[in-house]
Amino acid sequence: MNPPTPWILGLDLGGTRLKALCLTHEGAEIARTTVSSGGDDWKQSVKQCVDQLVKTHGTPVSIGVAAPGLPARDERCIAHMPGRLPGLVDLDWQEFLGFHKPVPVLNDAHAALLGEVWLGAAKSLRDVILLTLGTGVGGAALTNGKLLRGHLGRAGHFGHISIHADGPPDIVNTPGSLEDAVGNHSLHTRSGGRFHSTADLVAAAKAGDPQAADLWQTTIRDLAAGIASLINVLDPEAVLLGGGIAEAGDDLFLPLAAEMERVEWRPLGHSVPILRAALGEWAGTIGAARQSSKF
Amino acid sequence: MNPPTPWILGLDLGGTRLKALCLTHEGAEIARTTVSSGGDDWKQSVKQCVDQLVKTHGTPVSIGVAAPGLPARDERCIAHMPGRLPGLVDLDWQEFLGFHKPVPVLNDAHAALLGEVWLGAAKSLRDVILLTLGTGVGGAALTNGKLLRGHLGRAGHFGHISIHADGPPDIVNTPGSLEDAVGNHSLHTRSGGRFHSTADLVAAAKAGDPQAADLWQTTIRDLAAGIASLINVLDPEAVLLGGGIAEAGDDLFLPLAAEMERVEWRPLGHSVPILRAALGEWAGTIGAARQSSKF
Repeated sequence: MNPPTPWILGLDLGGTRLKALCLTHEGAEIARTTVSSGGDDWKQSVKQCVDQLVKTHGTPVSIGVAAPGLPARDERCIAHMPGRLPGLVDLDWQEFLGFHKPVPVLNDAHAALLGEVWLGAAKSLRDVILLTLGTGVGGAALTNGKLLRGHLGRAGHFGHISIHADGPPDIVNTPGSLEDAVGNHSLHTRSGGRFHSTADLVAAAKAGDPQAADLWQTTIRDLAAGIASLINVLDPEAVLLGGGIAEAGDDLFLPLAAEMERVEWRPLGHSVPILRAALGEWAGTIGAARQSSKF
Repeated sequence: MNPPTPWILGLDLGGTRLKALCLTHEGAEIARTTVSSGGDDWKQSVKQCVDQLVKTHGTPVSIGVAAPGLPARDERCIAHMPGRLPGLVDLDWQEFLGFHKPVPVLNDAHAALLGEVWLGAAKSLRDVILLTLGTGVGGAALTNGKLLRGHLGRAGHFGHISIHADGPPDIVNTPGSLEDAVGNHSLHTRSGGRFHSTADLVAAAKAGDPQAADLWQTTIRDLAAGIASLINVLDPEAVLLGGGIAEAGDDLFLPLAAEMERVEWRPLGHSVPILRAALGEWAGTIGAARQSSKF
């Protein structure tokens, strides 16, 4: 009998689900599982999930966690997160999981970018940004090969740039934010109650609904303005788009390319490629696992 | 007779003037001079200026250059600059000055930030951004102690973020940019022909002119929206404001603080200090000199 393969574990904790992914150091998948994290007893579900994986595959070499909010500087816990997931803030994950070495905790969008850099659409890139377009708009930046964390760990909150400075405040007080202009959470309001998901909006626009087509075009214009801004601030060699809205594929990327033609600064004719993130909703687990292997 | 003090030279080339500053390695001033760089023969003026300094003070240990535009990756020249200063693009400064070692060339706002980090308002900071508010709006970022350059060297072009996504394009196609909302270059248009300088606008607002007060308030609101965005993207520990408009002092910083109260994301009550840059228009020469000493 061969000794068990050494493996690393990435956890991605969301408001409703925990995703767990077991990988080799080369990134080959050993197992994946998803459990509910919606209730007040989410901690128990997480603990049971990890215990079960250990029982089946043995103790991992390292464990990493992706979670919403701002991680502490020492990466042991989430230091700040408004709402949801009671008990997450200040939870020391090494202690909680009873693990024998530090369990690094990353912001979930940061983890997703590290996943894309390791195994996805950002391989070999050194300056790249990711925007996650879903319920809200999140993001992360790699600059000169390193994750941009900033002073409090909040760098990359691209949803919270102001693209309509005289607009109403968003959840963190940003006036007329990119998140409110693009995220699914505001679509019901933006569409006068007609649409709940961007997929429905795009389908209606394609079916010839002029109101839907207008709204989709406005959404893309706002997104393009945000991306152009970020290009001028961070100067990436590529922009990745992930999250549910990016699943619109060509219906997003083609009109977006036309808008970028209009609004992007292209010194010496250089334009920045806008790519679809490759790893889907498992990117965060992959990045968390990868980060843990450095501890 | 003592041997001459070793010194380093910082040059800051603008559209109308070259500033030259001779410093010791500790940052003590030995000499400063300014010559015109406005005409087509600006290169000759620069060369004469440097030759004169060498004649007086001996050969410097190193020379650094700050200039408008995007420096090449190897820092030997400016690779891209629209308009002005004919012959600047691709000019190899080591060759041009006949110097015995590389002469690093920096973007002027990047150089100003490095100056502030060395001897000014950003000493001991590791994550800090600078906005230069003048004719246009420029900027630079230090992240984790390093200058953020990006892929093409354009990182930190904070004037070219879109704060009115449905607005007209600015000089690099950014719709409704921060530069067009705040810079002196657009004030004549923004004020319906009434004002040419922000200093005049502020004076009129203070004298009780309601139209001027409104316009100044709108300018500050737009600036605050831009700064709040940059805080959420780069997460600095401090924001520096430089350039002519920052000379408004309390007339800028006090109403800006009130606006930031409204639009800044303050996790755990943390607010980011907004400071006045300390080195004025010589910051670029200081940063260029400092950078050269690392070559």
